Amino acid sequence: MLLSHIASALNLPFAGEDIELLSMNELSLASSDQLTFAVNKKYAAELSNSHAKAFIISPELIESLPKNSSYIVSDNVSLSMAYATKLFAPKPIDFHLSHAIIGEGSYVDAKATVENGAIVGENVTIMAGAYVGSSARIGDNTIIYPNVTIYRDCVIGNNCIIHAGSVIGADGFGFAHTKDGRHIKIYQNGNTVIEDDVEIGANCAIDRAVFNSTIIRRGTKLDNFIHIAHNCEIGEHSLFVAQSGVGGSTKLGHHCVVSGQSAFSDHLDIAPLSTFTARSGVTKSIKESGGTYSGYPLMEHREWRRLQSKIAKLNS
Amino acid sequence: MLLSHIASALNLPFAGEDIELLSMNELSLASSDQLTFAVNKKYAAELSNSHAKAFIISPELIESLPKNSSYIVSDNVSLSMAYATKLFAPKPIDFHLSHAIIGEGSYVDAKATVENGAIVGENVTIMAGAYVGSSARIGDNTIIYPNVTIYRDCVIGNNCIIHAGSVIGADGFGFAHTKDGRHIKIYQNGNTVIEDDVEIGANCAIDRAVFNSTIIRRGTKLDNFIHIAHNCEIGEHSLFVAQSGVGGSTKLGHHCVVSGQSAFSDHLDIAPLSTFTARSGVTKSIKESGGTYSGYPLMEHREWRRLQSKIAKLNS
Amino acid sequence: MLLSHIASALNLPFAGEDIELLSMNELSLASSDQLTFAVNKKYAAELSNSHAKAFIISPELIESLPKNSSYIVSDNVSLSMAYATKLFAPKPIDFHLSHAIIGEGSYVDAKATVENGAIVGENVTIMAGAYVGSSARIGDNTIIYPNVTIYRDCVIGNNCIIHAGSVIGADGFGFAHTKDGRHIKIYQNGNTVIEDDVEIGANCAIDRAVFNSTIIRRGTKLDNFIHIAHNCEIGEHSLFVAQSGVGGSTKLGHHCVVSGQSAFSDHLDIAPLSTFTARSGVTKSIKESGGTYSGYPLMEHREWRRLQSKIAKLNS
Repeated sequence: MLLSHIASALNLPFAGEDIELLSMNELSLASSDQLTFAVNKKYAAELSNSHAKAFIISPELIESLPKNSSYIVSDNVSLSMAYATKLFAPKPIDFHLSHAIIGEGSYVDAKATVENGAIVGENVTIMAGAYVGSSARIGDNTIIYPNVTIYRDCVIGNNCIIHAGSVIGADGFGFAHTKDGRHIKIYQNGNTVIEDDVEIGANCAIDRAVFNSTIIRRGTKLDNFIHIAHNCEIGEHSLFVAQSGVGGSTKLGHHCVVSGQSAFSDHLDIAPLSTFTARSGVTKSIKESGGTYSGYPLMEHREWRRLQSKIAKLNS
Repeated sequence: MLLSHIASALNLPFAGEDIELLSMNELSLASSDQLTFAVNKKYAAELSNSHAKAFIISPELIESLPKNSSYIVSDNVSLSMAYATKLFAPKPIDFHLSHAIIGEGSYVDAKATVENGAIVGENVTIMAGAYVGSSARIGDNTIIYPNVTIYRDCVIGNNCIIHAGSVIGADGFGFAHTKDGRHIKIYQNGNTVIEDDVEIGANCAIDRAVFNSTIIRRGTKLDNFIHIAHNCEIGEHSLFVAQSGVGGSTKLGHHCVVSGQSAFSDHLDIAPLSTFTARSGVTKSIKESGGTYSGYPLMEHREWRRLQSKIAKLNS
Repeated sequence: MLLSHIASALNLPFAGEDIELLSMNELSLASSDQLTFAVNKKYAAELSNSHAKAFIISPELIESLPKNSSYIVSDNVSLSMAYATKLFAPKPIDFHLSHAIIGEGSYVDAKATVENGAIVGENVTIMAGAYVGSSARIGDNTIIYPNVTIYRDCVIGNNCIIHAGSVIGADGFGFAHTKDGRHIKIYQNGNTVIEDDVEIGANCAIDRAVFNSTIIRRGTKLDNFIHIAHNCEIGEHSLFVAQSGVGGSTKLGHHCVVSGQSAFSDHLDIAPLSTFTARSGVTKSIKESGGTYSGYPLMEHREWRRLQSKIAKLNS
């Protein structure tokens, strides 16, 4: 899509060369054929070092642009970015792709759906009511139970088990806001990647990324009702017990153990081998690996136990 | 249905004229063709002013009835009411209605179901495995992702997005109780109404009302795993982050923001522009708009932060 | 399956007579045609009294075996047991069974699936997108709403209502762990049994047992998003409000009331007639019936209210 077309759709002028853009990405990751954006002066340094050539920026950032940049200036970059994501959003179904490819020994129930462009590996079982979207990929030996939904472009590894009712790759919860308080959808143009040997319980939801991928790394096991927001990355061989949730862009290291009804805020970095007891509420990143934590606000498990006995004494 | 028929089904006598009744409603809202009920003396004044003409009441309330009322007297009004709701309950599917009407430019997947009597607007996408019940209505430009279930009689607005696995209009959780401890279903004969520009995440559940409607007002956006109980009303342009829930008949004003794993008791009134931080537990109504709240029991966010630092000191 | 075959699959030697085994079970319940196991010395006495004839045990337990036992010795019994469960695991679908039997007056939507070997009672409604697995049984007058999934071998009683999106009989969350930190699936070869007059809300998940049955006893009603883990037993006429969860093997007595967002650890025994207010976190068994509890850590409701007022005073 030409930058001129985007500027025109946003009803904003653009400066610089008119560039053909293939997709959008966040500032730190954008390449020369991707549209990116910078909201305010906090991003000035990052902007100067960007590999991108096309930007939506606030007026104060014009000076910080790399040489020969093309750009759209907006008084509300978040909102303009949201409108731009819609221009790049693929349709829910792509009818024009070639028929799905189903590997040898695989069973696709007559009441399951595998959309065009999808590639299903060998010895896969896709049960009644399951849905595999356009251009999705399913690895070998994977079992997709009934009424699972895998949105378009998502990738499931080998030897995975996805239990009934789980939803892989629904839109992340992202909105920009107008001055009069309406919420404008940021289209979620990334995908979800489930690596090998992952088991996902019943009625989970692993959202797709806004750009790039939400990733569940190999060997991780999720119980029922796990919510993983957009752009999360869950490390290898982790365990999530039922009804836990992880906020957007939070990354957990390998071998984390998350007990039931726990939750993580967004944009956290959690060290490997961290353990969280039931109903932990994690709002800060954790740098040292191997700790055990409890409570909300979160603290070391030992400290939490000591605190609970202190609190109990208030009642004596 | 004639009141005499209802009395006979409940094995109770009735007094007054035999009236044809079309449906049931709560006391404050019932009109002259609706059966209503009053459980105890607390409702005496409301009963006297009712526009209804047919009642199930406890014996002590006979004197408080409006003139010329028809009524059934019951020693357990809640239980009799529950049994009566069953008489008015529509079947899960109505085969006798005429074929669904699908608007121009709409796509209904061959593996989706749109029951008779449903009306689907223009440019709607209904994906594989989605279900639209008898007499349900779907507005223009709405996208229904795979394996969504919309129960009969529910109404979805224009420009809505409903993500996979969400359930709109399942029965609210309502029961009357026998003396020997059995739970008798109160049939949920209302519906769910989703207004325009609403987005509902994956695996949500928005229950139908017992009478009248559960309503999600326009522009509101729900993340994954949101539970909205029967007869709730969620104000315009509100945001619900994942795994939050709202108890029966609770009403939130416009532009509320509810962070993850929060919950509301039933029968609350929440002022507009209220913000709730993660895991808020709301058990009382909020009258002043614009506040920010935290904790369970709930308090102002500032107060909660101060309290957490006081609690932390217990451990020093 | 012969014990020699199992030993060979586990790459471990066996001692004693080569026995034909039909299934696996836990030590206290195993019969003479079931393979069982004992992890460490804690189980020595139970092992001596077992009715089973075939065991996987740790070396230290050889002396505690009943006379004439056949056994496999393993340095990691949990891991060997997990591998053995895979040998007994039925396939997700059994195509070789005879056609399902559908009782008189029952409606199975053309877009629903009832696998071979299933038995559906009379006057049952199975709506579009619902799935009833191989050899599952559905009682009379039961309603299965759209997109419900009932896994193979599960049993649903008479007069039940299962709302859309609920999943009955998905695998419980059970894994053994290798020394290098991988999680090895314990196949869940039991089932889920839902007794008569049970109503299950939208998007619930009631896992199947590892051995034997997860049971929801008659008359119990579940709201939306209820998680019941493997091998739980929920007593008669209980009520669960939305977003609550019960950990593995926990048993609740009859007439318990569990309010919203509550949770139970695994392996608890809860006395009948226990009531839990919203967001209770139950980590210990309860022996006396009839109590009301709150909080996490859990305490008597009165004590919790008193404690909350004490905590509030910290802020004054």
